[in-house]
Amino acid sequence: MSTGAVPTTAPTAAPTVGVIPPDALLAHWQGHRRLTRRVIEAFPEDQLFAFSVGGMRPFGVLAMEMVTMGAPMLRGLVTGEWATSASREARPKSEVLRLWDEATVELDALWRQLPAERLHETTTAFGQWTAPAYDLVLYVIDNEIHHRGQGYAYLRALGIEPPPFYDRS
Amino acid sequence: MSTGAVPTTAPTAAPTVGVIPPDALLAHWQGHRRLTRRVIEAFPEDQLFAFSVGGMRPFGVLAMEMVTMGAPMLRGLVTGEWATSASREARPKSEVLRLWDEATVELDALWRQLPAERLHETTTAFGQWTAPAYDLVLYVIDNEIHHRGQGYAYLRALGIEPPPFYDRS
Repeated sequence: MSTGAVPTTAPTAAPTVGVIPPDALLAHWQGHRRLTRRVIEAFPEDQLFAFSVGGMRPFGVLAMEMVTMGAPMLRGLVTGEWATSASREARPKSEVLRLWDEATVELDALWRQLPAERLHETTTAFGQWTAPAYDLVLYVIDNEIHHRGQGYAYLRALGIEPPPFYDRS
Repeated sequence: MSTGAVPTTAPTAAPTVGVIPPDALLAHWQGHRRLTRRVIEAFPEDQLFAFSVGGMRPFGVLAMEMVTMGAPMLRGLVTGEWATSASREARPKSEVLRLWDEATVELDALWRQLPAERLHETTTAFGQWTAPAYDLVLYVIDNEIHHRGQGYAYLRALGIEPPPFYDRS
């Protein structure tokens, strides 16, 4: 074991050279979250936790999965504490949207506390997933897009036109 | 009009500070493309361009949309030439996969010709979409994830288990 000033293990942080400015990644994420919020809103109250296609999970359950992944992931990256609730039980749409909006505010606040260098560090999230932090954030975003794509199919099967994919306003 | 050496318009390139290393973004994209390839493969030949849910486009059409977006987008960013075929007509699955695999090789080759700085420049793609180049690339990836999510719903509705979302090998 070295007692010198030079660390003997390789640093986990790569240089902060990259193609997406940190604020742009947050804006990208929040844009997707605004679209997902509109998809939640588009479901009839009585179908949100009931309807699905081909035996998949209803969209309310998928939305609650997103709630239990997004802010908890970023909280873990900022604080090093990895805690989340696994509860994805049925609840009124207004309650899902309330939790969604709380997460929106929390993500903005947490992002301001996250140094760009931190996003390059390899981290183990929730004691299970080891990857560069930017990959962990991308996974959360991708998971949301993936399940929202399912949600589009559910809405169409219900005869409801989903919000346009390209509009992130 | 200035005749001096200092440009009078603001530069479109921001500093190359960002959270995702260029090679990681390509790896991320190709990982998603490997998964999408498995989804194409999972469709029965006679359902690829026929089956859908709720009147949406069949997955073969969506896969062809991906083919006409991915490599053409990157080709445009590298060469400044924005050309693509709009043909999304039905064809054998083997032909879709052949086009897919050609694009895989082309994306790798084009990426090597793309300076990281280029990804920060604001560009108008296909004469229509103006955004920083990294946003244009993210849009293509997100569009693929979105439509693949629909494809998962189609497969489930057909009684077929889709490949696992987290496996990008």
